[in-house]
Amino acid sequence: MRSHYCGHLNESHIDQTVTLCGWVHRRRDHGGVIFLDLRDREGIAQVVVDPDTEEAFANADRVRSEFVIRLTGRVRNRPEGTTNPEMPTGMIEVLGKELEVLNASETPPFQLDEHTNVGEDVRLKYRYMDLRRPEIQNRLAFRSKVTTAIRNYLDAEGFLDVETPILTKATPEGARDYLVPSRTHPGSFFALPQSPQLFKQLLMVSGMDRYYQIAKCFRDEDLRADRQPEFTQIDIEASFINEEDIMGIAENMIRGLFKDMMGIELPEFPRMPYSEAMSRFGSDKPDLRIPLELVDVNDLMAQVEFKVFSGPATDPKGRVCALRVPGGAKLSRKEIDDYTKYVGIYGAKGLAWIKVNELAKGIEGLQSPIVKNMTNVVMEMMERLGAQDGDIIFFGAGKATTVNESIGALRIKLGHDLNLVEGEWAPLWVVDFPMFEQDDTGRWNAIHHPFTAPSCDPAMLEKDPGAALSRAYDMVLNGTELGGGSIRIHDPDMQRTVFRALNIGDEEANDKFGFLLDALKFGCPPHGGLAFGLDRLIMLMTGASSIRDVIAFPKTQTAACVMTAAPSTVDPKQLREVGIRIRQADEK
Amino acid sequence: MRSHYCGHLNESHIDQTVTLCGWVHRRRDHGGVIFLDLRDREGIAQVVVDPDTEEAFANADRVRSEFVIRLTGRVRNRPEGTTNPEMPTGMIEVLGKELEVLNASETPPFQLDEHTNVGEDVRLKYRYMDLRRPEIQNRLAFRSKVTTAIRNYLDAEGFLDVETPILTKATPEGARDYLVPSRTHPGSFFALPQSPQLFKQLLMVSGMDRYYQIAKCFRDEDLRADRQPEFTQIDIEASFINEEDIMGIAENMIRGLFKDMMGIELPEFPRMPYSEAMSRFGSDKPDLRIPLELVDVNDLMAQVEFKVFSGPATDPKGRVCALRVPGGAKLSRKEIDDYTKYVGIYGAKGLAWIKVNELAKGIEGLQSPIVKNMTNVVMEMMERLGAQDGDIIFFGAGKATTVNESIGALRIKLGHDLNLVEGEWAPLWVVDFPMFEQDDTGRWNAIHHPFTAPSCDPAMLEKDPGAALSRAYDMVLNGTELGGGSIRIHDPDMQRTVFRALNIGDEEANDKFGFLLDALKFGCPPHGGLAFGLDRLIMLMTGASSIRDVIAFPKTQTAACVMTAAPSTVDPKQLREVGIRIRQADEK
Repeated sequence: MRSHYCGHLNESHIDQTVTLCGWVHRRRDHGGVIFLDLRDREGIAQVVVDPDTEEAFANADRVRSEFVIRLTGRVRNRPEGTTNPEMPTGMIEVLGKELEVLNASETPPFQLDEHTNVGEDVRLKYRYMDLRRPEIQNRLAFRSKVTTAIRNYLDAEGFLDVETPILTKATPEGARDYLVPSRTHPGSFFALPQSPQLFKQLLMVSGMDRYYQIAKCFRDEDLRADRQPEFTQIDIEASFINEEDIMGIAENMIRGLFKDMMGIELPEFPRMPYSEAMSRFGSDKPDLRIPLELVDVNDLMAQVEFKVFSGPATDPKGRVCALRVPGGAKLSRKEIDDYTKYVGIYGAKGLAWIKVNELAKGIEGLQSPIVKNMTNVVMEMMERLGAQDGDIIFFGAGKATTVNESIGALRIKLGHDLNLVEGEWAPLWVVDFPMFEQDDTGRWNAIHHPFTAPSCDPAMLEKDPGAALSRAYDMVLNGTELGGGSIRIHDPDMQRTVFRALNIGDEEANDKFGFLLDALKFGCPPHGGLAFGLDRLIMLMTGASSIRDVIAFPKTQTAACVMTAAPSTVDPKQLREVGIRIRQADEK
Repeated sequence: MRSHYCGHLNESHIDQTVTLCGWVHRRRDHGGVIFLDLRDREGIAQVVVDPDTEEAFANADRVRSEFVIRLTGRVRNRPEGTTNPEMPTGMIEVLGKELEVLNASETPPFQLDEHTNVGEDVRLKYRYMDLRRPEIQNRLAFRSKVTTAIRNYLDAEGFLDVETPILTKATPEGARDYLVPSRTHPGSFFALPQSPQLFKQLLMVSGMDRYYQIAKCFRDEDLRADRQPEFTQIDIEASFINEEDIMGIAENMIRGLFKDMMGIELPEFPRMPYSEAMSRFGSDKPDLRIPLELVDVNDLMAQVEFKVFSGPATDPKGRVCALRVPGGAKLSRKEIDDYTKYVGIYGAKGLAWIKVNELAKGIEGLQSPIVKNMTNVVMEMMERLGAQDGDIIFFGAGKATTVNESIGALRIKLGHDLNLVEGEWAPLWVVDFPMFEQDDTGRWNAIHHPFTAPSCDPAMLEKDPGAALSRAYDMVLNGTELGGGSIRIHDPDMQRTVFRALNIGDEEANDKFGFLLDALKFGCPPHGGLAFGLDRLIMLMTGASSIRDVIAFPKTQTAACVMTAAPSTVDPKQLREVGIRIRQADEK
């Protein structure tokens, strides 16, 4: 029906007769002539209809915003003074000869250009209108091109795209499952997969050698701003490889994407042990663009009388650290109070600080409510921190996890507030994670998942689970975890040892993961892999501020689709068929 | 860990030292030397380990079937007389120097070469073993390559890969939905999509212009041999196109696949109206490789006294047809009885026949229990059918639907039984479907779906829904529907008219499809599309006999996964969280 896309027209088409199809983006009368901005997926072209072409003019006269039209006309130069070099089609216009209205539009629920004037609820209800905005369309087109590039890369590397099931076995571990009642097995349920983890491992047991899938995954969790109940994962697994192999493949993929899609040459990704990341940045996904670091001062603070510091400094689970912020001495009392509130979100009970006014004056040159409590160590600390006049130094003291979270978050916030961010892209690998972390009840939990291989042998693992490191690796970009994975356990004894360390007895293990334990017995190759969050990756690459801006039909924070009104009540007959009942409010 | 895949080795590698990883496919001792067939995804290579390499020999001595090993050795010519030109690696062998056992295997539940000796239940339980069979691996690899080719083609044609949701709104229409209880909206449910139909139409409303997705779809139906509860669809939609455009795109895609993947040049696909397909083949997906046709004889049979024929011949819903089978006169009484039983499966009450022994003798030359009842028309009928000596002619008489199904099926069966199949691939398009068909209660149902555009205007449609044709098209290959689609309704009034014809009142329409009706009001472009069943397509292309042979982890006929034991019971806490209860057997 069309000869060209609107957005593709340029001066090379001058004097050609073209046929365009699209939406009336804007319509205006000017000097007895009608101007239309005609929009399609590829862009906008200016159309002029003058009264000489009687029928076309009559049609142009009745079109309104978002009418769908087909227009045939001749491409010509725009008159001098009316060109728009900012616009790809800004040097030309189309003189309309025939204009057919393909469909009318009622007055739209909002004008595309004024979408910020309406709430997100309105835009999600009329998502098909919001998706007409070039900004969102371009993001979805970009996403499509990224997945194509990913597939091409992985295909070329010998990976096979294999589909794994969506109706899978429920596992009470990990996040909450979405359940699907079975009609043919009443009282039984499928679960939607949280990831294809076990299936991809079984594909390795099958000798599939190299697998990938751009896979839908599901988690029924309370949603934070950048989470969706269904999300998409670039899922990769390979056999007969080690960490270096698979990290190399993944890193090349991401570097290739940035280069091909955005012209950006990412540097080679540095490797950082988990312990270093936590110590220097308080985070296992440090944003390396921010040149601020946490410095341990446990040894010094152990010597002060002030219990707020000396307590955590001498507690094996405590931490006291300092964060030196160049130029921060100019922060106002009000600003410091706001930062104190900010770290409070992460559980910090306060935020001690020292302003370095004039170091040459010794302690006299420091301004702080706390210096008096640490006169014995403060100058040595200044030296360790490399303090300079004009700095402010913040302190975190308490449970190590709280200190890391709160001061780690403060570091990021200060970096942005004080415009300290250096460079645009800072990728790295975080490696050498612990296998397990202990929760408050003293129980060990897997930091990645129970199928991650440790870098020690089963005996060592059993003896000191807290000391065991895993063969896991996370890729981090600008403080966001892009993806992660591990070398997996391929030995059934090691798998059982890890289950036991996690307090999963043999019986429970057989019940839940019997098929995996079976599979490991029959010649499972060494294997490993990783997964990237596609939505997150696209968000980062496009600079979108919300994950909903890179998904065609996202859910709200209460996991609903306001456009289609899903979820919804269903016919009682449907519930009878699948053997369930709605639980009444007063039922236990 | 490897330098080459086993299956890639050939004479060009002679004298090179290679490292292979894989599974011991077979192990045999011969003359004090150990021979291993080492298998990986790409094929099998012969490895020889002799006692000179002491450590390697000791390891080779302990390996058994399905052990995973890493082997380094030198490629050499096989000794004369031991080459195997049938095998890609059959001219060479690898003299092992180092052999590392990467993992052991217990005795496998079945030998891969002897998989036909165990039931499908065993093979599905140990699916990861069954998937080691080169035959299945090759099919999955082929499937991956086909999807890559499809994506490349559609990308090049300007289609964007856009993901649509899996957690969608339940619709009581169509097949049975899989339901997902919502935790955040207790008492409400999502449904897994039966197809992304409405989402892809909304993407067209959004101006996305060209969309595709290789999409998981779900139907909770009782499974026939070639159905799965979750299946994969190549889903395509485009705006500003007509039937010719989209059929052209789809046909080129399929022809390109056959050419690139199999070296087969399919002919251009003929178009056949639905009415012709039903009349000549009794089916809307005729297998054109079989040169047998149904011939209408209503007009003749209306003149006979025999009520079995004259009744249906004069009933507007009846049909009497003849199927001439060259060479069929040699069928025995027993064989004819078996065919009579066969058509009985499809509801036919009997199977009348005439053997044409010697046409020159007129009626005397015909052998049949029924000729005496139709002496007045039988010779005219013979002429119409082009009967020849040696033919048998079968008759179907009754309700047109029953006649079409039963004689249509008989046509296929006879074609195969009598080796009449001509050519390997017979594609076609079936077009000009009716919009609706009437069920036994007189209610109209959509033959495709309620969003299919009719080729007439709303007034005509309202006046005579039974006469309205749709703008739908099905692609058929060898009697299998590969895919189908239609131009969609883009006008809200037409959509309401179709809903009304289907007995869906305005209120019900608003309730179920309000978002679509809304979307049509705000500038919906003309659009259409189609969807292919990927599983079916791969099955046809690979010649697999079951859909389960082209899916990595298929479900059984009761929609279960015997490997993971899904579906399964879940923790009562999980049910409480999502606000449902299992219905007890005695609950209404």
